[in-house]
Amino acid sequence: MRTQVAIIGSGPSGLLLGRLLTLAGIDNIIIDRVDREYILGRVRAGVLEQGMVNMMREAQASEKLDAEGLPHDGFEIALNGGLHHIDLHGLTGGKRVTIYGQTEVTRDLMDKREADGVTTIYDAQHVTPREFGGKNPWISYEKDGATHRIDADFIIGCDGFHGPSRKAVPPKAIETFERVYPFGWLGLLADVPPAAEELVYGKHARGFTLCSMRSKTRSRYYLQVPLTDQVENWSDDAFWDELRRRLPEQVADAVVTGPSFEKSIAPLRSFVAEPMRFGKLFLAGDAAHIVPPTGAKGLNLAASDIRYLFDGLREHYADKSPAGLNAYSERALARIWKAERFSWWMTTMLHTFAEDDAFGRRIHDAELSYTLSSVAARTALAENYVGLPY
Amino acid sequence: MRTQVAIIGSGPSGLLLGRLLTLAGIDNIIIDRVDREYILGRVRAGVLEQGMVNMMREAQASEKLDAEGLPHDGFEIALNGGLHHIDLHGLTGGKRVTIYGQTEVTRDLMDKREADGVTTIYDAQHVTPREFGGKNPWISYEKDGATHRIDADFIIGCDGFHGPSRKAVPPKAIETFERVYPFGWLGLLADVPPAAEELVYGKHARGFTLCSMRSKTRSRYYLQVPLTDQVENWSDDAFWDELRRRLPEQVADAVVTGPSFEKSIAPLRSFVAEPMRFGKLFLAGDAAHIVPPTGAKGLNLAASDIRYLFDGLREHYADKSPAGLNAYSERALARIWKAERFSWWMTTMLHTFAEDDAFGRRIHDAELSYTLSSVAARTALAENYVGLPY
Repeated sequence: MRTQVAIIGSGPSGLLLGRLLTLAGIDNIIIDRVDREYILGRVRAGVLEQGMVNMMREAQASEKLDAEGLPHDGFEIALNGGLHHIDLHGLTGGKRVTIYGQTEVTRDLMDKREADGVTTIYDAQHVTPREFGGKNPWISYEKDGATHRIDADFIIGCDGFHGPSRKAVPPKAIETFERVYPFGWLGLLADVPPAAEELVYGKHARGFTLCSMRSKTRSRYYLQVPLTDQVENWSDDAFWDELRRRLPEQVADAVVTGPSFEKSIAPLRSFVAEPMRFGKLFLAGDAAHIVPPTGAKGLNLAASDIRYLFDGLREHYADKSPAGLNAYSERALARIWKAERFSWWMTTMLHTFAEDDAFGRRIHDAELSYTLSSVAARTALAENYVGLPY
Repeated sequence: MRTQVAIIGSGPSGLLLGRLLTLAGIDNIIIDRVDREYILGRVRAGVLEQGMVNMMREAQASEKLDAEGLPHDGFEIALNGGLHHIDLHGLTGGKRVTIYGQTEVTRDLMDKREADGVTTIYDAQHVTPREFGGKNPWISYEKDGATHRIDADFIIGCDGFHGPSRKAVPPKAIETFERVYPFGWLGLLADVPPAAEELVYGKHARGFTLCSMRSKTRSRYYLQVPLTDQVENWSDDAFWDELRRRLPEQVADAVVTGPSFEKSIAPLRSFVAEPMRFGKLFLAGDAAHIVPPTGAKGLNLAASDIRYLFDGLREHYADKSPAGLNAYSERALARIWKAERFSWWMTTMLHTFAEDDAFGRRIHDAELSYTLSSVAARTALAENYVGLPY
């Protein structure tokens, strides 16, 4: 098989890039180690920056997002029994975020791809980028007991933190930066209406909480828990009790409980790999960087990577210019590090660090109380939350 | 001896409080373990917030400050060979700082006190606050071989980090918070005109630098150095060479060198003791809290402590109300923690941490590049630098 752009990974970033390339008349193949149903079964966040929404429109894949996405003009921070409103819309001169599940984004893009009739290879084993340091990169994979090969002009690794693309790069060519946080998020998904119209981020001596939603009838709640906790030991009742204990009364009273249909503990990690280009191989999204979910930046960062990468590929094919692709790594990393900083900052400010020194705890408290007291600091928070310019 | 308010420490905070009390007709004594010349020989910083300048005016001690203080509308951040202007005046709606040496503040207040003819006891040994948990606190001290006693309504500890006031408090009544930074500042004072009109804070791979001044003919420069460095091993020539190496060319070329008349290495520390009141004993300034000098907050925080404390004492004597004194510790600490946060933030963002993890270094770099790129973040920096409201 031969194509212009071979994309590893059929998550939202690979699908978004594929759709934009198809619309631009650039031939592409997507290959994934799992199948469509597996990918759509993953539970993911869903706070979209305007830049991401704009890209879904550019990809002509926003019908459902435009119809069902919930625009949010702000969020709440719960502290010491009270609520503090962060007026995203007012502080940023009219910007907002849109609540729309990442799973829905993925499904919408998969549907478009299917309608486009563009090749997607699911259930491929041992997918491996090859010879991307030279002129003729290719991908090897196995399927149905046979070995296959895709030749391409470029290989794009949209295959997540554990995918094969970054692993194919010689270790000495790559520098990594990492911070692992000493706690996890226990998440619960249930078909109950959300406790509040907007997201509520809660700081509490017992740990962080987040009240979020996928729609007006589906809620997603999180509790900060020790990494030693086992999800099997958390009954739904114990979850709801602990959630209400950490929330201000006005929110706790509004929590509608119901049976969970998903419950899991996720660790929190900050991670960046530099650079994001290795000859004809480009990394995008989680393949190159991870943020803790506190700032809701994971999917949105993948979208800005795709923005820079798609522009570079289009320039390459349409204008015969290498400028965009040559600038990709640096442009993407400049935005990524700002989002890494923001996600680290939100995380340290809002969580309870059992092992932190006393001075550090007070500094985090002072950071939050200063932020809530200052228009300038709330504006800085808001402009990062809605998304820094591409 | 008997007085209404006994103040331990004849530095700027003790003297400022004494002068304000005298003008309000409240009897006070200041006692210090050293003498006037020793105190005036200490080299200290000199960036005054407007609130501090206002208090010097209220104390009718601002003639020289008003005549000779240098109003600064901004400062520069040097990074990667370039200069980035922080427009304090524009970002804060017209606020600024005033450059005027702390030594000059102290001298001006000492002169007023001498003219007032109010008692100041210098060269007192073994100064110790006594029975401040009861109704009749007193201070014991020795002088000229004899033991003496001052009875007072209140004892105010303005006696610095190493003074006797905080040490007189039972350890279980006090909680302390501390961060020691893994580097020091090598400072040099010389009678040469400053390299730039405004202060220049420089971040560089070789370490932080600060170009500051006391007047138009006296400059104060600082270099970040390892705590293992010995000041004896730093010749003036070595200092000037290293300074210029770390500065952008346009600033380095403007550095005027000359013989130093003071050179020393100071460690950087963050420290807070809570609470700041123990019965009839009140702590103020460095006796209760220390900040690293990066944000120029040390003297200014002492001034806001004195603001709250003087108001409380006046309310006590004039209005027979304990409200101000009862609120002192909480009001002062709320502002102190915000300044501690700011000083810690400026320090971590601008210094080079040799022992820091790679992720942390990149986060500090991202913090600075985000701050320089965002009006909201620069406004937050500026509003803290000129001083948060009292």
